Order: sequence, then C-alpha cells, then structure tokens
Amino acid sequence: MKFYDCKTAPSPRRVRIFLAEKGIDIETVQIDLGKGEQFSDEFRALNPDCTVPVLQLDDGSGISEVTAICQYVEELHPEPALFGSSPEERARVSMWNAKVEQLGLWAMMDAFRNSAKGLVDRALPGPESYAQIPELAERGRKRLLQFFERLDHQLAECTFVAGDNYSIADISAMVLVDFAGWIKITIPDDLGHVARWYSDVSTRASAAA
Amino acid sequence: MKFYDCKTAPSPRRVRIFLAEKGIDIETVQIDLGKGEQFSDEFRALNPDCTVPVLQLDDGSGISEVTAICQYVEELHPEPALFGSSPEERARVSMWNAKVEQLGLWAMMDAFRNSAKGLVDRALPGPESYAQIPELAERGRKRLLQFFERLDHQLAECTFVAGDNYSIADISAMVLVDFAGWIKITIPDDLGHVARWYSDVSTRASAAA
Repeated sequence: MKFYDCKTAPSPRRVRIFLAEKGIDIETVQIDLGKGEQFSDEFRALNPDCTVPVLQLDDGSGISEVTAICQYVEELHPEPALFGSSPEERARVSMWNAKVEQLGLWAMMDAFRNSAKGLVDRALPGPESYAQIPELAERGRKRLLQFFERLDHQLAECTFVAGDNYSIADISAMVLVDFAGWIKITIPDDLGHVARWYSDVSTRASAAA
Repeated sequence: MKFYDCKTAPSPRRVRIFLAEKGIDIETVQIDLGKGEQFSDEFRALNPDCTVPVLQLDDGSGISEVTAICQYVEELHPEPALFGSSPEERARVSMWNAKVEQLGLWAMMDAFRNSAKGLVDRALPGPESYAQIPELAERGRKRLLQFFERLDHQLAECTFVAGDNYSIADISAMVLVDFAGWIKITIPDDLGHVARWYSDVSTRASAAA
C-alpha cells in the first residue's frame, strides 16, 4: 500500500490522524497541490478526480476518498475501533461522519474556495475550472456557524461527536475546526460543549498528524 | 425499526431500492415534504436536520443519512451483499458511492434547488432558509454532465459502477439519473456505457421502489 498525501491539506489530514490513532505507518508520497502535482498524468491515472488523499492498494488501484480509505484501514487493523463497535454504534458514527462532511466540511470548502485570492477559477477541487461565486463563500460561513451550533447541542449530550467513544466523526470534526481557522472562524464563545470537546480531542497525540 | 420516507423524493428512494434488493419490509411512515411535515416538532426530535430518510432504531434514536441507514441494514441482513464482499471491494463500493454523492447528487441538488420555482429561499434542505443562487444552478448542470462522462469511462471498464457486482453505488447512480430527469437532463447520446448500464439496473424489480 502507498498513501498519497499533501501535508498542508485538510482532507488527507483526516487519514493521517486515523493512521496515527491506529499506530500504523504506510509508505507515503507527498503531492504538492500548490505546484499542481495532482494534475500530472501519473497521478491522474491513479485518481482522475485529481484530489488527495489516495490510498494505492497492492493491486495498483487507487481508493480516492477519505472515509473509504479509513474504512479499509479499519478492516485490516480493527483495533482501536474508530467506526464503532456494534451495528447501532457504527450507524451513528457513519451518520455523524457524513453530517460533519455535508453540513460542515463542504460548507467550509465553499467558504474558503470561493473567497481565497489564490483560488480564482479553482472554486472546486478536481480537473475542471470553476469560477468563484462570492454568495457561496458568504453562505458557507453562515452554514459553518450553524453547524457548530448543531454540534454544540450534540456535544451537550455526548462525550464525543457520535456518542461515548472517540471515532472517525471526531477526527473529521476536529479537522473542520482547524480548517475553519483558515478563514478566521473560531469556535464561538457561547458554544462551551464544542470548546470542551475540542480541548479533549486536539490534545491527543494523533492531532499532530 | 421504523422507516421515515417520502415517496416522491430521491434520497429516501435510495433506501427503498436497497430494502427491495434485500427483500425486506419495514414499517414505513410517509413524511409529506410538500406540506412541510419535516418541520414538525415530532419529526425534529427525531432528526433536527429536518430531512428524510430517517431510520428509527428500536431504542427510539434516528439514523438520518442514506448510507448509514443502508450500512446498518446490511449488517442485519448481509445477503445479498450490496457494499461488497472483500475489504478491497468494500473500499471501491464506498468510494464510488461517495463519488456519486459528491460529484453527482450534490451537483444535481444544486442545479434543481437553485432554479425550481417552488423552492425560492429553499436552496438547501434543512431547517434554515437559503436564497437561490442562479450561478450555482448553472454550475450544477455543468458538473452533472461532467460526472456522467466520468461514469462512462468507469462503465467502459466495469459491468457495474464499482466493479463486477451490483452495489449501493449503482442504486445511488440510478437515482441520480432519474433525478436529473427533473431538470430535463438525460444521458447524453454519446455515453453508450452509461446507457447500457442504466438499461440493466433500471429494469431490476427493485427500481420500481
């Protein structure tokens, strides 16, 4: 297996933290997104969508999606369980991981990519160019703050995002909080449950990954 | 278990087809999105994000995300396997199901919700109102057609979306094709592999669900 990473990007960081929690080292190749290395013919053959992370399997094929990569790693290395330990817990973890993506990370991506000066015509990742839409940046900021409130309600009830145990949903949500810092959005002062949780998860050794 | 459905909506249809492939009947409650039943206090208590589908578990909690629901059903009823039968196949199925969502279904949702006359200020599902962004509708149409091309390349190599076997990725992609019909986008004539695959999957008995 080979892991195609970009040390500065949020999506592959989700996988790096997951691997750190598992205590696994995988041969890693850095793809420099700033230099456009994701558009090389070699990388396109592995992932035509030109995004990182990618996990290249031993048969040469590429798995180019964060949750699918982590799920595969979980199957090969089940402990510690980061997708839950019962059908019900696995369902809750999958749901929360998806909600963090759909309501949090995609909103944050909208906010960042539609406003960053270096990303004119790069409002979406991938091989095609898309112009920035300023209203989408604004909408993304608003949605992100609403999602933090949603998360605060959840974390008022639970130790971790998907319940009593640390899971991939916490990894995704912690990466979201750090990514939000790129556009100077921090956890609002009145969201004490998110702040308590962030303090817990961001001081785990894996958070340095 | 209880399944909260809306007979006319694409997202819960993915679950209905999944259940039909498994041959499972679950007690079903119809939520009329047109009448705003997703905003009732009772439904909000089950899913604060005010979306369908929701699977209510026997402990009363709600799983309100398509893939998490299907994964839970797969654990209780493993045959026929619709998430793959080996770690590698499961990784490919999860990746393709996610790509159909991220590159196809979310683009289609942008195209539809940002242009439909009945959805002014409802450009996103959920409890908050968002104004339509016409450029986002246009971008969604373009992305959708690009994703159909991406799918054609994949289906030139494989019988089904994620490889040799029918899976949840086929269900998601078939629902996408039918959803695209709502904005009068059909499979382009030059994408013969998508047309061949669609003819296969849409004539399965489960497609009527």
